Amino acid sequence: MTEPCFDVAHLGHVELYTDKFEESLDFFTRVYGLTPSLLEDGCAYLRAFDDYEFHTLKLTRHHTTGVGHVAYRTASPQALERRVAVIEAMGCGIGWVDGDAGHGRAYRFTDPDGHIFELYYDTKIYEAPEAERPALKNIAQRYHGRGCCPRRLDHLNLLAADVSVIRDFMTQALGSRVTEQIQLDNGRLGGCWFTVNNKSYDIAYSEDHGGGQGRFHHVTYAVDQREDILRAADIFLENGVHIETGPHKHAIQGTFFLYVWEPAGNRVELANAGARLILRPDWPTVTWTETERKKGQAWGLKTIETFHTHGTPPVGADKKG
Amino acid sequence: MTEPCFDVAHLGHVELYTDKFEESLDFFTRVYGLTPSLLEDGCAYLRAFDDYEFHTLKLTRHHTTGVGHVAYRTASPQALERRVAVIEAMGCGIGWVDGDAGHGRAYRFTDPDGHIFELYYDTKIYEAPEAERPALKNIAQRYHGRGCCPRRLDHLNLLAADVSVIRDFMTQALGSRVTEQIQLDNGRLGGCWFTVNNKSYDIAYSEDHGGGQGRFHHVTYAVDQREDILRAADIFLENGVHIETGPHKHAIQGTFFLYVWEPAGNRVELANAGARLILRPDWPTVTWTETERKKGQAWGLKTIETFHTHGTPPVGADKKG
Amino acid sequence: MTEPCFDVAHLGHVELYTDKFEESLDFFTRVYGLTPSLLEDGCAYLRAFDDYEFHTLKLTRHHTTGVGHVAYRTASPQALERRVAVIEAMGCGIGWVDGDAGHGRAYRFTDPDGHIFELYYDTKIYEAPEAERPALKNIAQRYHGRGCCPRRLDHLNLLAADVSVIRDFMTQALGSRVTEQIQLDNGRLGGCWFTVNNKSYDIAYSEDHGGGQGRFHHVTYAVDQREDILRAADIFLENGVHIETGPHKHAIQGTFFLYVWEPAGNRVELANAGARLILRPDWPTVTWTETERKKGQAWGLKTIETFHTHGTPPVGADKKG
Amino acid sequence: MTEPCFDVAHLGHVELYTDKFEESLDFFTRVYGLTPSLLEDGCAYLRAFDDYEFHTLKLTRHHTTGVGHVAYRTASPQALERRVAVIEAMGCGIGWVDGDAGHGRAYRFTDPDGHIFELYYDTKIYEAPEAERPALKNIAQRYHGRGCCPRRLDHLNLLAADVSVIRDFMTQALGSRVTEQIQLDNGRLGGCWFTVNNKSYDIAYSEDHGGGQGRFHHVTYAVDQREDILRAADIFLENGVHIETGPHKHAIQGTFFLYVWEPAGNRVELANAGARLILRPDWPTVTWTETERKKGQAWGLKTIETFHTHGTPPVGADKKG
Repeated sequence: MTEPCFDVAHLGHVELYTDKFEESLDFFTRVYGLTPSLLEDGCAYLRAFDDYEFHTLKLTRHHTTGVGHVAYRTASPQALERRVAVIEAMGCGIGWVDGDAGHGRAYRFTDPDGHIFELYYDTKIYEAPEAERPALKNIAQRYHGRGCCPRRLDHLNLLAADVSVIRDFMTQALGSRVTEQIQLDNGRLGGCWFTVNNKSYDIAYSEDHGGGQGRFHHVTYAVDQREDILRAADIFLENGVHIETGPHKHAIQGTFFLYVWEPAGNRVELANAGARLILRPDWPTVTWTETERKKGQAWGLKTIETFHTHGTPPVGADKKG
Repeated sequence: MTEPCFDVAHLGHVELYTDKFEESLDFFTRVYGLTPSLLEDGCAYLRAFDDYEFHTLKLTRHHTTGVGHVAYRTASPQALERRVAVIEAMGCGIGWVDGDAGHGRAYRFTDPDGHIFELYYDTKIYEAPEAERPALKNIAQRYHGRGCCPRRLDHLNLLAADVSVIRDFMTQALGSRVTEQIQLDNGRLGGCWFTVNNKSYDIAYSEDHGGGQGRFHHVTYAVDQREDILRAADIFLENGVHIETGPHKHAIQGTFFLYVWEPAGNRVELANAGARLILRPDWPTVTWTETERKKGQAWGLKTIETFHTHGTPPVGADKKG
Repeated sequence: MTEPCFDVAHLGHVELYTDKFEESLDFFTRVYGLTPSLLEDGCAYLRAFDDYEFHTLKLTRHHTTGVGHVAYRTASPQALERRVAVIEAMGCGIGWVDGDAGHGRAYRFTDPDGHIFELYYDTKIYEAPEAERPALKNIAQRYHGRGCCPRRLDHLNLLAADVSVIRDFMTQALGSRVTEQIQLDNGRLGGCWFTVNNKSYDIAYSEDHGGGQGRFHHVTYAVDQREDILRAADIFLENGVHIETGPHKHAIQGTFFLYVWEPAGNRVELANAGARLILRPDWPTVTWTETERKKGQAWGLKTIETFHTHGTPPVGADKKG
Repeated sequence: MTEPCFDVAHLGHVELYTDKFEESLDFFTRVYGLTPSLLEDGCAYLRAFDDYEFHTLKLTRHHTTGVGHVAYRTASPQALERRVAVIEAMGCGIGWVDGDAGHGRAYRFTDPDGHIFELYYDTKIYEAPEAERPALKNIAQRYHGRGCCPRRLDHLNLLAADVSVIRDFMTQALGSRVTEQIQLDNGRLGGCWFTVNNKSYDIAYSEDHGGGQGRFHHVTYAVDQREDILRAADIFLENGVHIETGPHKHAIQGTFFLYVWEPAGNRVELANAGARLILRPDWPTVTWTETERKKGQAWGLKTIETFHTHGTPPVGADKKG
């Protein structure tokens, strides 16, 4: 038996592009409830109250929407070296970069669909200023209660032309495990959920029917309780945020979800996984057939059409919308 | 930097002794909501609805209460061999046993306080019979809704004469990380929380003031939501179960808790950690001083006296009680 | 100013017809979580754990589905006499009946759509047998935790050919207040919500597009928390109950809802209104336009088609389904 | 049978005195989550997001703490006249006042312990300004999500030298029903819970052991879910608010509670009653004995000592504290 790989510790941060920077920033801070660590010209470093790093979301002013890059932190400096060696051997490496305001040097590479990834170990730990210091010292920042107030970055979802190719890539490059997947009748993979640790997933890929490349589906932060998501639905409603679908429970992974579109159009989720974890080291991939997926979500909600068509940046028909 | 160790995957099961077997079994199945995989003469193999293994609690008829043994599953067969080598070198090994109804061969050893531990890799996966098959195939058993209906085994807490010695032992033997601890004014450790994975802890030790050896403090299963714990409080109330303290939020680890005593006197907890996980690979131990601990639990509840005195099997004054 | 009327205290019970008596009874007791007070041949008297009367749901074996009768309890014997005088003057009275196992004599009458109503004051108070006695004596029965375990009967919804006529009828006959209503573009009322007390509604009527008469839309019991409804969704899922729509929040009345069909096809809801009450004595009816209703439910869920077409007993196309 | 009285519709507002006006105002608006309708010199008119009137809490700068007056709204102008006639006949009337910024003329009277009450019918309905307009028009103000964000005023608790005298007074003056009470072994009433509508109580009185007169115990606003109270506990914790006791479930009335002290020392509660209502017109008073009360709260929490000694304004030993 090949031993499981633990080189990559966790998803570190996501860079999101917005062509409505001010509106997006207002959404992510006042409504969604993230806290800025640094606001630069056209760039905001944001994090949830219990994210231990300087930032988990980098919001960047851009001529379009979508994802800038995705970063994972490794378990150690040695693990970083091992991964870089593997990735270079795979031939998809870009090379070392200095890292931005939130962390040290990082190794960049691309997935087969053109999304840019980073691996890093050296990071900047968030130090709460006086006003944000928590009453209990085992959390990173005080529970501020502003907006939806999620606890931490949870996962992201990317679109790709061929999810099967991504499956091979992610398991090799990051040593990820495939916890669940959708097997379409045409032999293709409709979606694939990966994890590098005990979370049930930290990244997922869905098949892109829009013909784009390197596109983004959504990013998700975790709240502590499902009630936080019901409460968030009212907050989104009162703030005029477009609620796409939810709250409801996913059949796949069982997470309780709520999807909205931030002002620039990027899809953002709030989710709660309850006490579910993938602790089993030899977890067998759960495969869902197309027939099973047609039953809709866990409690019968039909998956909304835009969930299959809307990605960022928009392409084709969606672009005009 | 020494690299983190990932040899041990997770806490596997706990064997609990009871001198009121029938009453304890009724409590754990009907009220607490575990499901038996196997009932033998004087022995019950129990599990929560999403525990993937054959059992996570072995309830054994005995002349007293307390813990029989504690078992962890390793990440691979190779990892098991590595750990056994370390433990044998530490001089605290007992040797290989065949394993009981729930798993294959296991290596036994003792901690410095005399508690018996097991490490194993080969395990028996729970196969849900027809009536217990879940509607969604990514959970182990259907959500049956019986009693408190916890999702999975979470952690246990043991008493020890010297927690400092235990800290060195656990970090060496299992490669556990110390996520939080209590530093008493007298220089001793009052308590220590360990984890081998991304859960904030899977085992904790508290100083035994009773003069016993190898004693047990409590075992805990996790529910998905804090509301499940409030609901459980009513279930315990209506079933005449002794509620010791809670529901409330721990200052240490931030878990939402409820402690009860099962009919034989063993302390049992229900807990919810929200979305909190220890994803940071270089997590620095959080140390609480005696002064900080005097503030009570997170929202001010004073820690109840019996929490410091009651363990199983009882010793001294507690024994007569 | 005319003074408000307080003659009618609350909705008392609903008689439901089923052509699958055993399956329906199993659903209402084991899955939905009501408790039988009396089981007779072809008739079950059921109640929720905190309903103070002998029964709030009478389940009757019948050749079809739908509602048998609807009963309200008056505030006093004198109030009963006053209401009977009003109803007789309205010309829709049927006359006095002895009452069944659950209450004393009752006055029967019909609404303009042919549904049968009862008014009564003398009632049989539920006396919990030993095994059902609550730990706290201010609730009617112990919190048993079986199935969805609702607290009390909340409301029902009936279909009618002309809701405007019903509005006049209910306000006159029972002295009900109209808390909310739907004003269609064609001048008709699409729906109307009534209350006789501080609950936001105890009965609602929706326009019947099916051409039937005296038909039933749904009956609803209240749970304490929204989490109870999310939990119930899993219970319905695991027990193969058809979930029609939800959980979600109604735009009208703001209740958090979940609709299922019991085995015979009658629609049953679980709901939670939070802390919302109609305490204002001069509450002005909230009127929703057709345009407003097209926005869907509170968080955007589109109202499912069957919600407008499915009633019991079935008529027309629905009948064949 | 005497018919029940429905003259008084609901508790209208409470005037609270503070000798730390700015700190108290900051607490009630930013932390507790009420919204000001009007801020005057030394006086703030506050309300919860779904309170339909101009204000439910009048915060008044004063040389001490405690309650200024308590106001109930009647069901109609005629009902107001009837109540005034009764109260004048009882000989405890003060007379008509013009009413303040929140309502029209009101009739003032005193209870036997010297607390000042008001009855009024004409009131000022809250009209949400543009920024506070709700997305759904059936609530008074948008769900702003600021602080604990309670929905509405729920009840208050006053201290009195002789609760038996109060019981007779309230049932006669307001036509209140006594839903629950504590019967002490010495023949006195330890506490009494009253309601004028379907809420389980709108005012409670506890015996004042401090020797004061006209003192205040606490005022309570209702939140929709118990989870809102758990969340509020973290908000209070992070804002340095003194949490006196809770969250826990009351044995009496079954409400889920959390008690804090606002900066000037007045006790403030957040509570949730679930779906519990007193719909029964002939509800028999539930009487708790001293022995029963010694069991503590519903799940065993011992009632904290200050709960019996701390009232506002402080007297005796508490005064020096």
